[in-house]
Amino acid sequence: MIILFGIFIRYNEESDAHWIEHKTSKNISSNIENDYYFRYPSFQDVHVMIFVGFGFLMTFLKRYSFGAVGFNFLIAGFGLQWALLMQGWFHSLDPMDGKIKIGVESMINADFCVASCLIAYGAVLGKVSPVQLMVMTLFGVTLYAVEEYIILSLIHARDAGGSMVIHTFGAYYGLSISWMLYRPNLDQSKHRIGSVYHSDVFAMIGTLFLWMFWPSFNSAISDHGDGQHRAAINTYLSLAATVLTALAISSLSQKTGKLDMVHIQNATLAGGVAVGTAAEFMLMPYGSLIVGFCCGIISTLGYIYITPFMEKYLKIHDTCGIHNLHAMPGVIGGIVGAITAAAASEDVYGKEGLMNTFDFTGEWKEMVPTRQGGHQAAGLCVALCFGIGGGIIVGCILRLPIWGDAPDNSCFDDEIYWEPFWSYFSEGDFLVFQ
Amino acid sequence: MIILFGIFIRYNEESDAHWIEHKTSKNISSNIENDYYFRYPSFQDVHVMIFVGFGFLMTFLKRYSFGAVGFNFLIAGFGLQWALLMQGWFHSLDPMDGKIKIGVESMINADFCVASCLIAYGAVLGKVSPVQLMVMTLFGVTLYAVEEYIILSLIHARDAGGSMVIHTFGAYYGLSISWMLYRPNLDQSKHRIGSVYHSDVFAMIGTLFLWMFWPSFNSAISDHGDGQHRAAINTYLSLAATVLTALAISSLSQKTGKLDMVHIQNATLAGGVAVGTAAEFMLMPYGSLIVGFCCGIISTLGYIYITPFMEKYLKIHDTCGIHNLHAMPGVIGGIVGAITAAAASEDVYGKEGLMNTFDFTGEWKEMVPTRQGGHQAAGLCVALCFGIGGGIIVGCILRLPIWGDAPDNSCFDDEIYWEPFWSYFSEGDFLVFQ
Amino acid sequence: MIILFGIFIRYNEESDAHWIEHKTSKNISSNIENDYYFRYPSFQDVHVMIFVGFGFLMTFLKRYSFGAVGFNFLIAGFGLQWALLMQGWFHSLDPMDGKIKIGVESMINADFCVASCLIAYGAVLGKVSPVQLMVMTLFGVTLYAVEEYIILSLIHARDAGGSMVIHTFGAYYGLSISWMLYRPNLDQSKHRIGSVYHSDVFAMIGTLFLWMFWPSFNSAISDHGDGQHRAAINTYLSLAATVLTALAISSLSQKTGKLDMVHIQNATLAGGVAVGTAAEFMLMPYGSLIVGFCCGIISTLGYIYITPFMEKYLKIHDTCGIHNLHAMPGVIGGIVGAITAAAASEDVYGKEGLMNTFDFTGEWKEMVPTRQGGHQAAGLCVALCFGIGGGIIVGCILRLPIWGDAPDNSCFDDEIYWEPFWSYFSEGDFLVFQ
Repeated sequence: MIILFGIFIRYNEESDAHWIEHKTSKNISSNIENDYYFRYPSFQDVHVMIFVGFGFLMTFLKRYSFGAVGFNFLIAGFGLQWALLMQGWFHSLDPMDGKIKIGVESMINADFCVASCLIAYGAVLGKVSPVQLMVMTLFGVTLYAVEEYIILSLIHARDAGGSMVIHTFGAYYGLSISWMLYRPNLDQSKHRIGSVYHSDVFAMIGTLFLWMFWPSFNSAISDHGDGQHRAAINTYLSLAATVLTALAISSLSQKTGKLDMVHIQNATLAGGVAVGTAAEFMLMPYGSLIVGFCCGIISTLGYIYITPFMEKYLKIHDTCGIHNLHAMPGVIGGIVGAITAAAASEDVYGKEGLMNTFDFTGEWKEMVPTRQGGHQAAGLCVALCFGIGGGIIVGCILRLPIWGDAPDNSCFDDEIYWEPFWSYFSEGDFLVFQ
Repeated sequence: MIILFGIFIRYNEESDAHWIEHKTSKNISSNIENDYYFRYPSFQDVHVMIFVGFGFLMTFLKRYSFGAVGFNFLIAGFGLQWALLMQGWFHSLDPMDGKIKIGVESMINADFCVASCLIAYGAVLGKVSPVQLMVMTLFGVTLYAVEEYIILSLIHARDAGGSMVIHTFGAYYGLSISWMLYRPNLDQSKHRIGSVYHSDVFAMIGTLFLWMFWPSFNSAISDHGDGQHRAAINTYLSLAATVLTALAISSLSQKTGKLDMVHIQNATLAGGVAVGTAAEFMLMPYGSLIVGFCCGIISTLGYIYITPFMEKYLKIHDTCGIHNLHAMPGVIGGIVGAITAAAASEDVYGKEGLMNTFDFTGEWKEMVPTRQGGHQAAGLCVALCFGIGGGIIVGCILRLPIWGDAPDNSCFDDEIYWEPFWSYFSEGDFLVFQ
Repeated sequence: MIILFGIFIRYNEESDAHWIEHKTSKNISSNIENDYYFRYPSFQDVHVMIFVGFGFLMTFLKRYSFGAVGFNFLIAGFGLQWALLMQGWFHSLDPMDGKIKIGVESMINADFCVASCLIAYGAVLGKVSPVQLMVMTLFGVTLYAVEEYIILSLIHARDAGGSMVIHTFGAYYGLSISWMLYRPNLDQSKHRIGSVYHSDVFAMIGTLFLWMFWPSFNSAISDHGDGQHRAAINTYLSLAATVLTALAISSLSQKTGKLDMVHIQNATLAGGVAVGTAAEFMLMPYGSLIVGFCCGIISTLGYIYITPFMEKYLKIHDTCGIHNLHAMPGVIGGIVGAITAAAASEDVYGKEGLMNTFDFTGEWKEMVPTRQGGHQAAGLCVALCFGIGGGIIVGCILRLPIWGDAPDNSCFDDEIYWEPFWSYFSEGDFLVFQ
């Protein structure tokens, strides 16, 4: 890795010490126009989502909190280095000197890429070994970079918040792997698939940081100015609507009217996924609410009906329910994006605004919104194919009996991978309170 | 809600795709001057305070952590949508087309509005049903929007950090409701009003995120440039002073000299509340320290003496002690704001600085600092009246026996509203360690 | 404190109400060029590291979580006020009127100063009283301000992320104090030096917030524009590399191949410390990876071999292992900084870039990179001397039997300083689940 970085990776002109000369030559008036100041706060928010958000969201299992947050850390730390290289080769290779020039946007993109692998981790949480996770990440990042290149550069689809590129791909990649690694005797570990009181509160930390910073996620790499502004507003509204419907459906679905913590932890986030592609478009505030409203319903119903169905009949065990949180909302997001793009008009966007938002420049000068809608739909298909196809292939590789995965009766258990220097409680407690 | 958003809410010119044309017409040199880049980092900090800060601060109860963080999420998600509408009608209705134009500042204001409802939730935590909370939020947001309009627009008081508008109003609103809903037989649930070790650590997450991001809260909507800068510094200093006095008083008040976790969790925040109104004024660094110093004392003493007194003699049960954390410091903040405003002079502020800070423009051109001080005091009275009056009325409504609140012996208990799929401990633990 | 603030501390021109006039006179085009907008997001990230990062990182002990997060809060709240004064006297005393002018950069510097005291706290965690901590902080901040003045101003070494100034000084200060306060009979409290399951998850909150926001820490006070941008990228890469090597060494060092939570919590951060000094230089992406790679190995091995050795033979008990996390990586950081500075050339930096990065202006106009390397090395020596010397002196003071420290059999126990109104578990639990 160090050698590859040595050969290929350099600072871009905004992070290089020559910036001061670059600034003069490009007639940039102030340091504040460095891309760093446009994107760094969003980058940090995304960073929190990746490490605390995804990490803690998965701590809900009573005996797998270390694995959730620790392996999440491992995957992300490894994945982002590999992502900088893979994405660099496809997107930002400087033809002049064959180097990859990195800046704050590259860091955000690397975090995005890692997000798709962490989504996939959600499906196989507790059932695979750290080595399997590294293999899964290695291939996942590679597939992501290719798929992203095809969707964003070749097809010229727009996907600011990555509904297609990140969520659809990541979720189907994980689900396919989980399908390939199906364990018929998993019920030997069934008693550990559940939460204790405090592990659910830990998971809420993850949920809330994901929820709060999702506007930054969807706006992190959209256009300077109105693009970022609009993406943040749309996501904020969509998420707010999702919270309400997720809680309402959760309560209505139980005879007792009680709420289910699993829905609060997960389904409340579906609106952020579904608004990803269209966030930078003129989706309109009510449009965002509609998207969030629908996704809250679909995602909660997914937890109630589809996850058990998939496990029983399709033999896909999905530990965190990523099908409900990422796969379905991701596909919806792609469709919403296609419709919004196809419906764009100069009336709503203004002439320059339209060109700017959809990047109708250079070789795409002749593009029109309706065709752009078609390209968006094509992008969604590519993401689906890469997710399912890639997942099946990588799943085959992971079935080889060389990766040291846990036996069926030790899944969802930290003791198999972590030194048990801790105890669940300290010994004295019983004497004190009995 | 979706229909109302469809009719009324649109992007403002900084988040609309026409921004690029607007920029040219207004001769704005760069995208970085979009209000988004001035306020978005502060918005995210405020957002964290609302969802993680308030949510986790209330998790201290041993058996009500789900309710604390879950219902907090529900109130905030619902409240911010309603707040965008209500505040929009009062503050940012465009007279040209009858639409509300939203941008990043609207999102911050909606979060502020929600904050006042969450403060009120602190007084009734564990004693009301989710439906009652929704009703409380619905009316709370409405009252807030009216009160804010009167204080900020009609009276022209300044209140950057909302000592009056948010904290005084929210706290008295909650206390009045709690008074109306007084349960004489609450001691049947008394054994659940307490914390366990880890629930106190969870509450510290809330405390710290509130404490750390309070400078962003108080500076989020103050003037660009020096206003935001000064508000952040004042709040930072005031909070630092409060930590010291809160801990000192906590230790001195016990015969054993030990510290009390309740004081650390709550009283350390009082300085941020009290400096809210005056944060953007030239309060001077030592002024901030004095405010923080006094509030740390008052708030801690409040927990020791006033809360038990209120429960015993006034029949107001205040679960989280919001009287000490929000009500008293809020009133102090209003008074400090009035004095600081009345004492303002051109010497200290400069001619332009004075006009700029107090917004002496348009119809308020003839305003002078001493009169501004009077207006500040009037604003405080309005906040008090709305809080107490509104709380009593809403409390009456909530006494109707149709809202499904918990019986006296099931208060502060998650089991009544949440699916008990979790256990407090996993079963195997006892065998392992005994 | 209030009096000293009253006499000395004022707003600087960017946070004063005269900013609007200052702006006109200096021909600054927009409010966005206020230093606030360059540094405030980084400040907030640093703030989170100080209060949540350090606070929660130390909660891993099964019975000392309150002390960890509570006393951390106390030290930080007190330290930052004192730091504003001490650093002000040395660095930003305005010769015109004898006042200290504060702004956002002062707040960041005060947080940095506090960080060094919190590092020192890590060595003595659980073994000292709150009063001893206050004394330790008082002297620590004072020593820091002097040492910082010598290193940055007199010697003109550069130290953006404080590898030398913060980490090396803080760690050796704490270790020397711990050495002076060595308790031969500490094994009476040995059964409390350990974690329980959930306390380790709490500690991961601290770890992750430190890890995620370290790029902001190292870039917070570096130069506007490319300096901040580059510092963030270098730290991001270095930390990513550290995660991998720390986990690898942790697994390899155990016969069973299992991972150790202590290493994940601590050693993963070493790369951020070690890249501190050189972060704003042209270290190159692969350079950052090399630094992170090495530090992950050294730090993890330190936990396995050096900490037990120090305790057994050198009589230094280091509760949190700060020698592995801050001391060694800090020294490495100083050395890396010296080498990178000495190797700087106009080829790589550009003429203006070189002057800008190393601040070769004013009286340092004639400086050359090779000499700068020597100055960096001298700075490292000063930090070491201040740390060790200061620690020994303060340690002597803290040995006086007047500070109320805990007896040997009550170390690492919250009950001695905190009101036991909480229980470890609630009483009903046993009946429910047995």
